[in-house]
Amino acid sequence: MGKNLTSRQEDYSKWYNELVVKADLAENSAVRGCMVIKPYGFAIWEKMQAQLDKMFKETGHQNAYFPLFVPKSLFEAEEKNAEGFAKECAVVTHYRLKNDPDNEGKLIVDPEAKLEEELVVRPTSEAIIWNTYKGWIQSYRDLPILVNQWANVVRWEMRTRLFLRTAEFLWQEGHTAHATKEEALAETEQMNNIYAEFAETFMAMPVIKGSKTENERFAGALETYCIEALMQDGKALQAGTSHFLGQNFAKAFDVKFATKEGGLEYVWATSWGVSTRLMGALIMTHSDDKGLVLPPKLAPTQVVIVPIYKGEEQLAEISKTANKLVEELRAQGISVKYDDRDTQKPGWKFAQYEMQGVPVRLAIGPKDLEKGTVELARRDTLTKEFVKQEEVIEKVKGLMEEIQETLFNKARDYRKEHTTKVDNFDEFKKVLKEKGGFISAHWDGTSETENKIKELTKATIRCIPFDAKKEQGACVLTGKPSAQRVLFAKAY
Amino acid sequence: MGKNLTSRQEDYSKWYNELVVKADLAENSAVRGCMVIKPYGFAIWEKMQAQLDKMFKETGHQNAYFPLFVPKSLFEAEEKNAEGFAKECAVVTHYRLKNDPDNEGKLIVDPEAKLEEELVVRPTSEAIIWNTYKGWIQSYRDLPILVNQWANVVRWEMRTRLFLRTAEFLWQEGHTAHATKEEALAETEQMNNIYAEFAETFMAMPVIKGSKTENERFAGALETYCIEALMQDGKALQAGTSHFLGQNFAKAFDVKFATKEGGLEYVWATSWGVSTRLMGALIMTHSDDKGLVLPPKLAPTQVVIVPIYKGEEQLAEISKTANKLVEELRAQGISVKYDDRDTQKPGWKFAQYEMQGVPVRLAIGPKDLEKGTVELARRDTLTKEFVKQEEVIEKVKGLMEEIQETLFNKARDYRKEHTTKVDNFDEFKKVLKEKGGFISAHWDGTSETENKIKELTKATIRCIPFDAKKEQGACVLTGKPSAQRVLFAKAY
Repeated sequence: MGKNLTSRQEDYSKWYNELVVKADLAENSAVRGCMVIKPYGFAIWEKMQAQLDKMFKETGHQNAYFPLFVPKSLFEAEEKNAEGFAKECAVVTHYRLKNDPDNEGKLIVDPEAKLEEELVVRPTSEAIIWNTYKGWIQSYRDLPILVNQWANVVRWEMRTRLFLRTAEFLWQEGHTAHATKEEALAETEQMNNIYAEFAETFMAMPVIKGSKTENERFAGALETYCIEALMQDGKALQAGTSHFLGQNFAKAFDVKFATKEGGLEYVWATSWGVSTRLMGALIMTHSDDKGLVLPPKLAPTQVVIVPIYKGEEQLAEISKTANKLVEELRAQGISVKYDDRDTQKPGWKFAQYEMQGVPVRLAIGPKDLEKGTVELARRDTLTKEFVKQEEVIEKVKGLMEEIQETLFNKARDYRKEHTTKVDNFDEFKKVLKEKGGFISAHWDGTSETENKIKELTKATIRCIPFDAKKEQGACVLTGKPSAQRVLFAKAY
Repeated sequence: MGKNLTSRQEDYSKWYNELVVKADLAENSAVRGCMVIKPYGFAIWEKMQAQLDKMFKETGHQNAYFPLFVPKSLFEAEEKNAEGFAKECAVVTHYRLKNDPDNEGKLIVDPEAKLEEELVVRPTSEAIIWNTYKGWIQSYRDLPILVNQWANVVRWEMRTRLFLRTAEFLWQEGHTAHATKEEALAETEQMNNIYAEFAETFMAMPVIKGSKTENERFAGALETYCIEALMQDGKALQAGTSHFLGQNFAKAFDVKFATKEGGLEYVWATSWGVSTRLMGALIMTHSDDKGLVLPPKLAPTQVVIVPIYKGEEQLAEISKTANKLVEELRAQGISVKYDDRDTQKPGWKFAQYEMQGVPVRLAIGPKDLEKGTVELARRDTLTKEFVKQEEVIEKVKGLMEEIQETLFNKARDYRKEHTTKVDNFDEFKKVLKEKGGFISAHWDGTSETENKIKELTKATIRCIPFDAKKEQGACVLTGKPSAQRVLFAKAY
């Protein structure tokens, strides 16, 4: 059936690429580095969106929409931000095509339709948004502004991979404005916590919360908080970031407010985002050599029912039982699909739903009707059992919780096994090479040392964990004093 | 308070522009022709999206996402479509900016980062999608494909107006693929019907369903069905379109499928869309000189409660009653906001919620506490009455239905009064000038005549209504025979 995947052990990267395509999640498009998100992949993304959107709204945020384009002069207003993104941005220079009389009327860019000022396709929206906020903020009464937008952004990456790094991607970007530094810092932390809660509770993906070193910070931020996850190949993945922007953008766009006390001060800012990259993280955290494995909370279809039958009459009998189960499961808020297509055989369907990670599969054949049972298969453990029909609903309900928990625990155990305390550089290199994962080591706090380690090993500091204990130590490379361990890893 | 609007009678266009800004719906941005949709405006759009999305899914459609960019060679593959959009498309030509050493390091387009092939920012996605469908469709088993995407598109319009015509706008675009012409035509009609149902049931906006003349058809379509609404200034607004694309795109992108019978045929296509333009239609259908008027089904806040008090103690007493109402209204699924801010006076709040079109306002003062009443104000009729506290919930519940219906009926009556049967061209011009609205007249069926009428009067054929009776008549301009009336109007 052409459905077999390369195994993870054989070639992890190939396994991932094949899985994304064969599970019908996404594919490459005719535009270099841009992907098509297919309906099944998009359905998972929609579930993520819905949950995140709910969490944002529960914490007082509202959605809005800002332009796709950033005029070059605004783009470069905040210098560090511009510097960080200038090398990878798509630029609109013209606003019309015309027929080329010299070439059979083929379309060419109309040289007479050149824009006075070039427009950058947003790689991130701080510039256009802070230019807008200038008009919204006069007094402390106008603060805080708690706004989010769901949007597409473009970063002209040279090496792209479906979901993980694409020239265009979908994301949400929150942009908030505050009267005080403390409030902005609290917002930065709150949103990072929301991302962590979402990752752990809905994606069943354990994450480490921490702050980035200066090297790894968002361009224009004073602090970047992040959640870092560990993939099954021992590489880390930055799954979400929340930035404390200080007054950098307020200064760049001259956004001041009248304080309660009658003063005039620059506004404090944060921004925070997660993207379709989370799809890559979700896939790589749980999936196996049979295909995608989905936590029930994000599965578009949580239960699939497949009839095993010969002839119309048997199908009709089985369908009676199946339809009753469908109805009862739906009444419990469980999404269920009864696949009675006659164009495909049961074996083909089994393979498809395994590949697509449907958490629970029920199969009903004539013998089940006789015995009053159904065959229940769990995607995560690949185990099967017979369940009495009258017990199916309770069983499935329980499994929705149990599978979610099992997946989380498995990923957490993997991370635990792949987090190693290391105190000298030879061991650092050895662990990184032989085992991978997070390396917890002392670091002298300089960008120089961080760069040197990256050069020698390709490992970077993923974060300075918030929960790291203070302990006296010596930098793993330079031996200089250090007050706490940080987390190193090779990363996506 | 600077909150007063120019009246509709004085200057309808100015009234609209002021309302959009003062009701906090949207504003112009730093990018020519692109708007910022503000949180309140976006909340209304989100309600529209949620309902439409539900209706699409109930009819078997799934969401997906396709690239923002269309390579020029794909863009021009379907000739008529390309011709229709080439004159107004934003074109990405470069993928990097660099510092200009001759100008203090200011950013300029890096001439070395020129794309081999220019990328058109999608004005519509038929080209990129049909190029993708080529890989998805081999056999009749792969059909139909029923896909929708929510996206931003860019059309470089020269004259722009908030929501009605913007260089970038948000929309949904459905793109479906079918095995037969009949099925594609049925889909085209079904989606036009869904748009009509949405407009009438949720927006409380009556629409005429019909087909476009060749002049007004979507570039590349064989048929365009549409819903046409009438605004309060007597101008028509095309609120949604559904296109039967025949095999044009399948031929342009060579998309064939193996039939059940073993043949090989080109696939049949439809596309259909509504956009943030609906916001403009919604605003202009119901609003008045006090501001926005919203149908309850699309109001982000359906009920606002304002306390009238002096001092903390009174507020505390009133809040008890108010919070109880909030709770009971929410239990009925009604969205309600209790505005007990002490930074603004009640009069200011009343004006704000009137401007923002909140359907029902409840005010509670100390006298109401004594008498066990609240003051209830309806936004649509601007009427007030006192209601016993124990009757408020039922009253408000009833009003949600009643206001929705009243708005629809009012708009339908307006349309009825502004739809005129006309049988000669002098009268045509007179009615158009003095009364506006739809003119139901005979037309000889030629583009030439349609163009001539447009030239002379600025009126176009909005649609050939589906429910038009067959009747023998003479073209209002040429006197040539005609078999049915069509609807003319000046249009947005």
